[in-house]
Amino acid sequence: MAITGVMRPGHIQIRVLDLEISRKFYRDVVGLVETGTDPQGRVYFKCWDERDHNSVILRQADRAGVDFVGFRVSDRAALDGFERALKARGLATDRLPAGEMLETGERLRFTLPSGHDFELYADKTHVGNGLGLVNPPPWGADAERGIAPIRFDHCLLYGPNVQENKALFTEVLGFRLVERILGPKEAGEPELAIFLSCSHKTHDIAFVEHPEPGKLHHVSLRMASWEKVQRASDIMGMNKVSIDIGPTRHGTTRGETIYAWDPSGNRFETFAGGYEPYPDWEPITWTFDEFGHGLDFPTGKLHESFLGVVT
Amino acid sequence: MAITGVMRPGHIQIRVLDLEISRKFYRDVVGLVETGTDPQGRVYFKCWDERDHNSVILRQADRAGVDFVGFRVSDRAALDGFERALKARGLATDRLPAGEMLETGERLRFTLPSGHDFELYADKTHVGNGLGLVNPPPWGADAERGIAPIRFDHCLLYGPNVQENKALFTEVLGFRLVERILGPKEAGEPELAIFLSCSHKTHDIAFVEHPEPGKLHHVSLRMASWEKVQRASDIMGMNKVSIDIGPTRHGTTRGETIYAWDPSGNRFETFAGGYEPYPDWEPITWTFDEFGHGLDFPTGKLHESFLGVVT
Amino acid sequence: MAITGVMRPGHIQIRVLDLEISRKFYRDVVGLVETGTDPQGRVYFKCWDERDHNSVILRQADRAGVDFVGFRVSDRAALDGFERALKARGLATDRLPAGEMLETGERLRFTLPSGHDFELYADKTHVGNGLGLVNPPPWGADAERGIAPIRFDHCLLYGPNVQENKALFTEVLGFRLVERILGPKEAGEPELAIFLSCSHKTHDIAFVEHPEPGKLHHVSLRMASWEKVQRASDIMGMNKVSIDIGPTRHGTTRGETIYAWDPSGNRFETFAGGYEPYPDWEPITWTFDEFGHGLDFPTGKLHESFLGVVT
Amino acid sequence: MAITGVMRPGHIQIRVLDLEISRKFYRDVVGLVETGTDPQGRVYFKCWDERDHNSVILRQADRAGVDFVGFRVSDRAALDGFERALKARGLATDRLPAGEMLETGERLRFTLPSGHDFELYADKTHVGNGLGLVNPPPWGADAERGIAPIRFDHCLLYGPNVQENKALFTEVLGFRLVERILGPKEAGEPELAIFLSCSHKTHDIAFVEHPEPGKLHHVSLRMASWEKVQRASDIMGMNKVSIDIGPTRHGTTRGETIYAWDPSGNRFETFAGGYEPYPDWEPITWTFDEFGHGLDFPTGKLHESFLGVVT
Repeated sequence: MAITGVMRPGHIQIRVLDLEISRKFYRDVVGLVETGTDPQGRVYFKCWDERDHNSVILRQADRAGVDFVGFRVSDRAALDGFERALKARGLATDRLPAGEMLETGERLRFTLPSGHDFELYADKTHVGNGLGLVNPPPWGADAERGIAPIRFDHCLLYGPNVQENKALFTEVLGFRLVERILGPKEAGEPELAIFLSCSHKTHDIAFVEHPEPGKLHHVSLRMASWEKVQRASDIMGMNKVSIDIGPTRHGTTRGETIYAWDPSGNRFETFAGGYEPYPDWEPITWTFDEFGHGLDFPTGKLHESFLGVVT
Repeated sequence: MAITGVMRPGHIQIRVLDLEISRKFYRDVVGLVETGTDPQGRVYFKCWDERDHNSVILRQADRAGVDFVGFRVSDRAALDGFERALKARGLATDRLPAGEMLETGERLRFTLPSGHDFELYADKTHVGNGLGLVNPPPWGADAERGIAPIRFDHCLLYGPNVQENKALFTEVLGFRLVERILGPKEAGEPELAIFLSCSHKTHDIAFVEHPEPGKLHHVSLRMASWEKVQRASDIMGMNKVSIDIGPTRHGTTRGETIYAWDPSGNRFETFAGGYEPYPDWEPITWTFDEFGHGLDFPTGKLHESFLGVVT
Repeated sequence: MAITGVMRPGHIQIRVLDLEISRKFYRDVVGLVETGTDPQGRVYFKCWDERDHNSVILRQADRAGVDFVGFRVSDRAALDGFERALKARGLATDRLPAGEMLETGERLRFTLPSGHDFELYADKTHVGNGLGLVNPPPWGADAERGIAPIRFDHCLLYGPNVQENKALFTEVLGFRLVERILGPKEAGEPELAIFLSCSHKTHDIAFVEHPEPGKLHHVSLRMASWEKVQRASDIMGMNKVSIDIGPTRHGTTRGETIYAWDPSGNRFETFAGGYEPYPDWEPITWTFDEFGHGLDFPTGKLHESFLGVVT
Repeated sequence: MAITGVMRPGHIQIRVLDLEISRKFYRDVVGLVETGTDPQGRVYFKCWDERDHNSVILRQADRAGVDFVGFRVSDRAALDGFERALKARGLATDRLPAGEMLETGERLRFTLPSGHDFELYADKTHVGNGLGLVNPPPWGADAERGIAPIRFDHCLLYGPNVQENKALFTEVLGFRLVERILGPKEAGEPELAIFLSCSHKTHDIAFVEHPEPGKLHHVSLRMASWEKVQRASDIMGMNKVSIDIGPTRHGTTRGETIYAWDPSGNRFETFAGGYEPYPDWEPITWTFDEFGHGLDFPTGKLHESFLGVVT
């Protein structure tokens, strides 16, 4: 079979400071589709073109950040196989029961060397994208409500031990390195950032070396085109959303991007373009002196807020 | 590992009536990168953003059409595994030696139930996209020479026994059905067309039921955006390329498309957009009465030339 | 002053066969903004980014077509000046009182040599585009309701005596010829079609020589980009709007276009792109043998329906 | 006639510190078409889709900035009329002989209250856009050589006495105010910036109140689309052009923009989008507290370099 094992970024649970303000923001400004609230009070969203019941989950908390990230695997056998492999590697794993999250099966949870809670799961109810499976139009009303991203695309996480993360993702979880950013020559060019893919996206997850564990840099939401990225930027301006960078193009991944903050200070990205790498492709390297162009290709600027602000 | 087995459409050998006219057409109008000529006189091309040495090969012949289509597999072990599986299914397979095609390893060839010669191979030299692997710009001069597609995306083949092809691709080769077009209700809604993926593209290969075996409907070349599809249409107009349909959008796959003919009458497509399906997604079905919108979503027209003309 | 005399296409009154079906079509599918109904039962619309109260007016009638086209002039003195000039040329003119159309001042009406009723007027109430005149956002909700064109851009009218029209528009009304399409060489290359501008648009009105007087070929509605033209084509497909041609690009004017029919059979265009000519620019000529590329640049097809069907 | 008097921004003479470096920059990176060098050593360029012989002229000098800006008027009678009107207003005018600039007729020069040398002229040789006047394709090779703007669109000048400039342009030269930016409430909301049009562009020239006379803020070059603005940003990144702001959208004029500096420190803009105002439209006002969104609509940032750096 061609795509097996870990299939895709499935869900991310984000901590927000005021649930009602955040619900309105993610629903009306970001334009996600609200799909439910669970007994714990968490609010569930999906992007319009996703078929699974949920992908972005908000939890009220005292500080912003990410609770956990979950990836969907191809089937339960794969889930069991990953559990064995993780244990064999000495990682403690945990099973969260089906139903702990709405419409989601049993989840295998473990902590990454970077300090992030990470999950795998095989089951989440398909609710479809609202267009049906017979003679569907290419899009519908949900595709124009707010920014209206297509899907939860990837996330960038900050924490220590990125090399251990890399080994875990490439040796156990079937990911591969697509791009990387190196540190300064005088420091021996350590990998500051790694972009990992389990598909032929440029990244399904990415990590940046950072002393504090378990931090969120951004949640990335996929847009269909550069003109849709512009539309997102217009909607941000209309709603006085705080923008970090963009619209611009990354050198790394070639992606077209805007970074902005939600009302709790969690950064999110609206992201289009890029290229589609295959497993046999060698990774691309960005050296430290060109890091500015890797981040913001046109200007080459090293935006301080981008480098330093995480939740 | 996440992507294993059959990775991608790798090469297609097309028969052309006048090699020099065709070479000029594919190089200067379509904007492929010429990478070599072999002792048999075949001319090799790649699309600018492909990393393998070649993807579109022209052979002079008395009649137009397709000689064979080849897919790259993840490694030689996969190649051997497919050989065993195909033989176990009773298909005759053949090995073509490494080097029979330029910069290409040993190829495993067999004939599909639809009458097409089909190949798998594990090795083809990486020559890169000309931008390098260190601090690459997002594109270069080759991206604006002629139509300049990104990659050989897929092909649509016409022939008999499409259901047997479907079984072979889904049961042995690890593909899955992404979309399908049904025949009329009074005929019991047989599958007229199937779109098969080994990745998260909407199709890596597609088949249409047709009495004559081994026919080519079109070779599809990937464009980066709807504006690049327009640019392709302008270049076709400037060069008086014969256009079949488009620019328009397909209902099937949501792709943005133009179909045109090369100087030998082989149809090619310049194709952008679409969506990215995952293996757990159920296929989309187009019924016969909506087939027109599946083909040409805005107009719903059933273009006769599209349905009947193959090489 | 830089722009004086005739300023722009202001309104067009279209005959429709079923007022309620047409009102819904122009409001919900075309996405015009409904601004009123007058005592005669006429329904008034404007495009979202127009500031005047109305531009497209529907009148129920037994047969489709155009009642009249009106252009706004810079002021009442200009209106009086045109009246004198038209009378001096021997044309009968008529004054329709202010208020005969909603929110519209006195209109000077006369019949063109091509048999079309044509109007000039100096006053129509500004209602704005809904975004205000202080710190306006670039667009609002009306810009995404249906196809949502920006403005009534121009119309193409069919009738006899196009050369007399040309003389009238260029010698009296201050228009100039921007492009033209010639007939066959063996017929002496008469001007089959003329594109006239009173601004730096490629055309504010156009005429095609045709034996029957007073016919409407199409009303053109302006879109902001090629991607918005695609969005229009998607909405047409979703609503099973009958499309004549497109999306494609014209050779004449370089415009990006779709032609479709309203429920009464009146053709309308959704139109973007083109270039901005100045009064000192010499006109562009399309010869008869390249007329196909003038109409549909990529394909060069001479669409029969386009040439023959008018209302 | 509809467009008379001042027709368009025609030429701008820019001072550069190193002529050869600048010539290469404007030719190869900006992608202007070089059309000649005069006996004084000035280098002449045009944008590809302009028909006049030249629009951007470089002169080697010790400090960067603008020598003069010239607008083309409809004919010599208009030129004479403007001379009389300017003299009647008490302005000293000067006549520069035909041929002082390549392929350019007699120029009427005077100094604006803001300290800028300003010219009107009626004649400049048409050399065309290289596509011909018979059956032209929509674009050619020059449209993809470097950034390749369509035309010299407008310029923004900094200097004192902006209200006197406004009176001169609106009362004598036939311009009108399209947008304006006000100062703080506590200062009585003076007009800090005015955007003036002699056409239905949002601005043909703009002024910002500034103590030092005769300064250049930027030369604006027109792009065809938001995707072309992105392409410009990619080319800037490839060539390490120093970017001030963008890509982004202005609130004022709705324009899509990048600001960057040439090798001498002169700012230029690549500019698309916007809307097309008519003479009867009331101006749009930006208040001081929303000035950030007027400048950079998505972010609302008041970029200091934009506000302070001029040549």
